[in-house]
Amino acid sequence: MDTTEFRRRGKEMVDLIADYLENIEQRTVYPDVEPGYLRSLIPEEAPEEPDTYEDVVKDIERVIMPGVTHWHSPYFYAYFPTANSFPAMLADMLSGAIGCIGFSWAASPACTELETVMMDWLGKMLKLPEDFIAGTHGQGGGVIQGTASEATLVALLAARCRAVRMILASDPQRPETGITSKLVAYSSDQAHCSVERAGMIAGVRMKKIPTEQSDKYAVQGETLRRMIQEDKAAGLIPFYFCATLGTTPSCAFDHITELGPICNAEKIWMHIDAAYAGSSFICPEFRPLLNGIEFADSFNFNAHKWLLVNFDCSTMWVKKRSDLIGAFEMDPLYLKHDHQESGRYFCTDNSLFRSLKMWFVFRIYGLKGLQDYIRKGSNEVNETLLKRINNGRKIHLVPCLLSGQFVLRFALCARTTESRHIREAWQLITQLAEEVMQELPH
Amino acid sequence: MDTTEFRRRGKEMVDLIADYLENIEQRTVYPDVEPGYLRSLIPEEAPEEPDTYEDVVKDIERVIMPGVTHWHSPYFYAYFPTANSFPAMLADMLSGAIGCIGFSWAASPACTELETVMMDWLGKMLKLPEDFIAGTHGQGGGVIQGTASEATLVALLAARCRAVRMILASDPQRPETGITSKLVAYSSDQAHCSVERAGMIAGVRMKKIPTEQSDKYAVQGETLRRMIQEDKAAGLIPFYFCATLGTTPSCAFDHITELGPICNAEKIWMHIDAAYAGSSFICPEFRPLLNGIEFADSFNFNAHKWLLVNFDCSTMWVKKRSDLIGAFEMDPLYLKHDHQESGRYFCTDNSLFRSLKMWFVFRIYGLKGLQDYIRKGSNEVNETLLKRINNGRKIHLVPCLLSGQFVLRFALCARTTESRHIREAWQLITQLAEEVMQELPH
Repeated sequence: MDTTEFRRRGKEMVDLIADYLENIEQRTVYPDVEPGYLRSLIPEEAPEEPDTYEDVVKDIERVIMPGVTHWHSPYFYAYFPTANSFPAMLADMLSGAIGCIGFSWAASPACTELETVMMDWLGKMLKLPEDFIAGTHGQGGGVIQGTASEATLVALLAARCRAVRMILASDPQRPETGITSKLVAYSSDQAHCSVERAGMIAGVRMKKIPTEQSDKYAVQGETLRRMIQEDKAAGLIPFYFCATLGTTPSCAFDHITELGPICNAEKIWMHIDAAYAGSSFICPEFRPLLNGIEFADSFNFNAHKWLLVNFDCSTMWVKKRSDLIGAFEMDPLYLKHDHQESGRYFCTDNSLFRSLKMWFVFRIYGLKGLQDYIRKGSNEVNETLLKRINNGRKIHLVPCLLSGQFVLRFALCARTTESRHIREAWQLITQLAEEVMQELPH
Repeated sequence: MDTTEFRRRGKEMVDLIADYLENIEQRTVYPDVEPGYLRSLIPEEAPEEPDTYEDVVKDIERVIMPGVTHWHSPYFYAYFPTANSFPAMLADMLSGAIGCIGFSWAASPACTELETVMMDWLGKMLKLPEDFIAGTHGQGGGVIQGTASEATLVALLAARCRAVRMILASDPQRPETGITSKLVAYSSDQAHCSVERAGMIAGVRMKKIPTEQSDKYAVQGETLRRMIQEDKAAGLIPFYFCATLGTTPSCAFDHITELGPICNAEKIWMHIDAAYAGSSFICPEFRPLLNGIEFADSFNFNAHKWLLVNFDCSTMWVKKRSDLIGAFEMDPLYLKHDHQESGRYFCTDNSLFRSLKMWFVFRIYGLKGLQDYIRKGSNEVNETLLKRINNGRKIHLVPCLLSGQFVLRFALCARTTESRHIREAWQLITQLAEEVMQELPH
């Protein structure tokens, strides 16, 4: 395929993608196939001679689509959202064409630098403490990881390295393996399974902190404090705590304002995993959920979940870049270059030009556009909905204002109200809400 | 940006990409910028209100391109190749639109199944032993990783898990940390720095096996055998050896036919890292370099380096999928589904629909097209070159046939030949070769 054909095929593919996304609602969201369905539909081996491009495209509907779980169908409510926006797709096309691997500054300065600056942009949107912003002189900053699982592991490894160094500094004769075997990390019993796996990979104890339904499954400061004391009494070395803001099962928020000071006092690395919920913190009304971030050593959320930046783009910040760089430092000659290390730039091995899609998305939406997407509706929409409800005269409610948000209050008032009335009311509200939403400009 | 605008912008982007790649030769391959160049060119914060798409596109040349190291410039000879082909780019566009995360079969059956089948296709192209092919009943199979570094680490962790289980099976009372602290892994002193880093991450000893220039920097069986004996005598437990086929500094090939049987006898996991060189094994004349693969537990190379499949696509095979699955198993309820595990499908966390680009590339090029790309020239080209050389009558040489390849022999014959004659001859040969290459159809 030469450039001329690519121009043609590329434009056809753009239309195919646009058609797919425009009509995705008509597809069955979860495929009706049995394991092994695909193997019988295609040859056992790669063709010796080239197939035609037409044949390949035909096979998208014949072979692939019947087995696709459509994550971008409006009927998809499984797992978690994965972002998919046109600006991000355009940026990804460009990134694929530039096709540089940004494992060092010299490998592609634009790639490394844009990543640092975009992480600053996003950090400022989140109103992260200054410590997490790289700027021109900061000690901290952000780096893009592939997934939150990666970020959790990277933070854990950096914490392990810091802990071992601290202990060796005061007791240089102690064997390193003897230290590692005493280390203990903590996370909520509600934390994502990748947190436990990070402990397995790093070969350290990972203890689950019990949570209660009555506390909305949030880790309490008192529980952590007690576990730390018991473990220290047993000769163990607490070194890492992974807090979750928005757990996978029930979106629980650990109490980081309580937990942070405990970690700081005990010199325990606090990592905050806000994989899914984190995007919402760009809205002032949700930002309080991130209070306590000032106590953390590292923080991560997935812009590729809810911030319209296509996978992969898991954004991670640390207060001290040197903690991360120090933990993974390797120094082969073939990676040396003139501007080796102002200590400013660091990025991961498998780093394509991922910051390009942040840049496109942040600019094409603007902060306001992104906030609107998180809110999925403005005060005006809620006002219109209330008017529509009350004009219908079937049910009646009144509004209130909470932190600047126009909220529809639904109060159970009459002695005569039964469950069936509430169900009816809810049905009416959803129906009207749907009408209002459909009248919105796209 | 709605679908209508995306159709327009997508097509413009296809042209922008085509223009970029058509004219890449005119760009300076290594950028002339200083660290920090980019920050001053763009605002300190994300815009509140959206920027126009036109402004973003203008900034590609103003902000990004001056800082890009052009990996696809024909003048780029640094690091290693990173694949970039039109079929792969088209597949990536589609993958971005489908935007599914294939961490389990149910998360997108097509994604998981195509990956398994494409890894079989590629395994058969490489003539891997049957053990590494999944098929419908195999115990082994392939999985796509992001990078060779990841594959090395995954293999090391699986090996660590297997070793610990084997020891616990015969000595159930032994504490696990006591085992880990005795484990020892090996790799060449020429191995990529990520192998050493894998040892750091997993918290195990990683010993470098010395190599000699006289052995072309290849690890010798005798050296490994001696180190194993010494380490066992010292109470350590050898458990992992990472062999390299094609080292980063000098493309050295470890002697796996010697090393493999030693590892098998000692129950040491042998992983083969052929990150760069591996693609060439699809040509029968290079396949002998992979002899000894039958002794390996796992094998990896980067299709994204030299096999025209855009980054990331690091292809890894194991003889026993259960070794990998067992080492990372987690079982949260939210990932359970009806077809949980025939044991057949496994893939990594950060798995987009990466097999799509393998499928597009393998079909649009065909095996022959891929082999031609590795060879970058056919017997016919070499014959034409020889004719051209001899017709010029300035120098004279004769051909030979080696394993089906038409080879130009350059023998030093005359007593009167000095260095300057050889330099002159070489200059002529390169000049004529260049002419011949330029006359080829693209």
